[in-house]
Amino acid sequence: MDLTITTAQLAAAAADVVRLVPGKLVDPVLGGLLLTADARGVVLAANDRERTARISCDALVHTEGQVLVPAKPLAETLRALDQPQVRLVVEGARLAIRAEGARFALPLLDVDLHPGVTEPPAPSGSVSATVFASALSTVATTAARDEALPIFTGVRVRSEGDKLVLRATDRYRMAIATIPWTPGPSTIDALIPATLLAEIGKQVVGDVWIGVDANRLSLAWEDMVVTTAVLDGTYLSESKLALSDFDTHVEADADALAGATRRVALYTDARGVISLEVGDSEVRLRTADRQTGEAEESVKATIDGGRTSPSYQARYLIDALRPFAGRRIQLAIQPGMRATVVTAVEGGEVDLRYIIMPMLPPKTG
Amino acid sequence: MDLTITTAQLAAAAADVVRLVPGKLVDPVLGGLLLTADARGVVLAANDRERTARISCDALVHTEGQVLVPAKPLAETLRALDQPQVRLVVEGARLAIRAEGARFALPLLDVDLHPGVTEPPAPSGSVSATVFASALSTVATTAARDEALPIFTGVRVRSEGDKLVLRATDRYRMAIATIPWTPGPSTIDALIPATLLAEIGKQVVGDVWIGVDANRLSLAWEDMVVTTAVLDGTYLSESKLALSDFDTHVEADADALAGATRRVALYTDARGVISLEVGDSEVRLRTADRQTGEAEESVKATIDGGRTSPSYQARYLIDALRPFAGRRIQLAIQPGMRATVVTAVEGGEVDLRYIIMPMLPPKTG
Repeated sequence: MDLTITTAQLAAAAADVVRLVPGKLVDPVLGGLLLTADARGVVLAANDRERTARISCDALVHTEGQVLVPAKPLAETLRALDQPQVRLVVEGARLAIRAEGARFALPLLDVDLHPGVTEPPAPSGSVSATVFASALSTVATTAARDEALPIFTGVRVRSEGDKLVLRATDRYRMAIATIPWTPGPSTIDALIPATLLAEIGKQVVGDVWIGVDANRLSLAWEDMVVTTAVLDGTYLSESKLALSDFDTHVEADADALAGATRRVALYTDARGVISLEVGDSEVRLRTADRQTGEAEESVKATIDGGRTSPSYQARYLIDALRPFAGRRIQLAIQPGMRATVVTAVEGGEVDLRYIIMPMLPPKTG
Repeated sequence: MDLTITTAQLAAAAADVVRLVPGKLVDPVLGGLLLTADARGVVLAANDRERTARISCDALVHTEGQVLVPAKPLAETLRALDQPQVRLVVEGARLAIRAEGARFALPLLDVDLHPGVTEPPAPSGSVSATVFASALSTVATTAARDEALPIFTGVRVRSEGDKLVLRATDRYRMAIATIPWTPGPSTIDALIPATLLAEIGKQVVGDVWIGVDANRLSLAWEDMVVTTAVLDGTYLSESKLALSDFDTHVEADADALAGATRRVALYTDARGVISLEVGDSEVRLRTADRQTGEAEESVKATIDGGRTSPSYQARYLIDALRPFAGRRIQLAIQPGMRATVVTAVEGGEVDLRYIIMPMLPPKTG
């Protein structure tokens, strides 16, 4: 293999693949980047047996060929280069990375041990990358990080007519984003690792094509195709939540409420709980702890219905308000220990509902 | 105590004091902020028995008084406030922090248990804050972080006529900055904790007045006065280093050399060593490791004298080049395992010399 390529383009492609498929520590081959050069350019591919990524780049190929090299060292070398052009050339048991005045050489790994990258499932439909990324920025971060409960580390991706619904929960809160979907030949319903979707949300551009088969989901945009194994498990569905008894509706500015929550939260006890007292034209956030002191702050609000006044984990309320920054939100509150639903007063392209569970109120001083 | 003050001013003052005197976990009183309000305004003070900081702020004082409150919670509350004005008022056993729509209350600590803040040593002379901060940004980060060797966690601050010399070493490298000093009634020679000086370097403005007595050093600027206990120990002096046998001088662009070092350093073995081969009109950085591969890069340079080619810890060479960013540097190299001195080809207000020790060369592949 021998090719010349724009450093920035190859560096970006290698970095994207490494972030999508970080590799496994146990097996260097699964942390390898497979480079395949032919007349059309060079294809970078990775496969850790759960995820695959494949991206094609334009390159001036002098000699065709295929090599496997450690992915991260290659990506780091390319990222560090100032030189605009770079040449990749096999020299004995090394892949040399040559740039003006410099030569770096990585050991070749055994291509025959690599699983390769098989054809992805065909696309079932597509979404706009901007809207998809916006929805994922909230939904993918709501999933649990605790690997002991794999089912809660996933985002459920489901097509419903001309909508795509993205849902995640860690059991204490749930985010549900509904975005426009251009339906194709088949429907989608799969549970996908949230960490991968969070990274994908940072990379997507243009249109994103999504497809599924029996145990994989594929996402494709521009020159990139990613596949992932789907997670097992029947998923906590919204319909299992009691969401029928809203007696109090609060409308307020999301930023004002988040700011006040952040300040009052400095005074919570170890449980981190604050109470939201619903008044006539304001809500009052309040907490107290013998050690840390006490705090209360009022935020102007429009109140409709009853005066049910729940308590929440302050950090979950802050997380729930963050995606609505700059907008007015509605809290739909139920009596007792039943869920509160946060939505925007005026809808946008991403229709987002954020559900949080109330907590027992803070003990006062 | 009862006073009204601009939130931003008080927030900045409290944050500065907390960063200078982070307090001791063992004793909440030593993590307290002592607030003293009188007709002239309010003074914030902290003392953890090793360091003190005191800053005065303008305030509209309604009732004079003195209270001690937990410093970090107060600083965090003030930092989080959006409201432009804040009122501090004692309410029973609490200090209430009142802003529009909000009330926060911190428990009062026992003022009588606090050591207070005594008068600082009188100033011996002064330096320009900008030049002092620039020198500290290199010198304070060269000291060791290892608390097991307190002597190497210090910066030696010594006045020599109209110069102030700042020196630090972690035994593997040494930074020596010489800056203009406006001498006063006495001279200075003390060893000061580098972490405190690093923080001071971020805060100083205008002129900085420095004073010493038997076991304390004081630094004062604007409305702030800081004191610290001096460290014990006779300090590794430059004169004990063999710096007399320079046979090779290399002039090169600091950024080009640092960039190449950073790239080649990706290929070192666990020791992190790269070799610097001195040629006729370039230096060649080189390293190799059976596992990671091999790297070499050339940088244009003007060579004078011999061709002595030392090896260095790559990260120490990068640290040594960083303060010279954007400038041309000279490496003065000695044969054998003797120190190399890095200086700027053209001097600036801060006269900086960075000394690094060579290492045994990397084993090649």
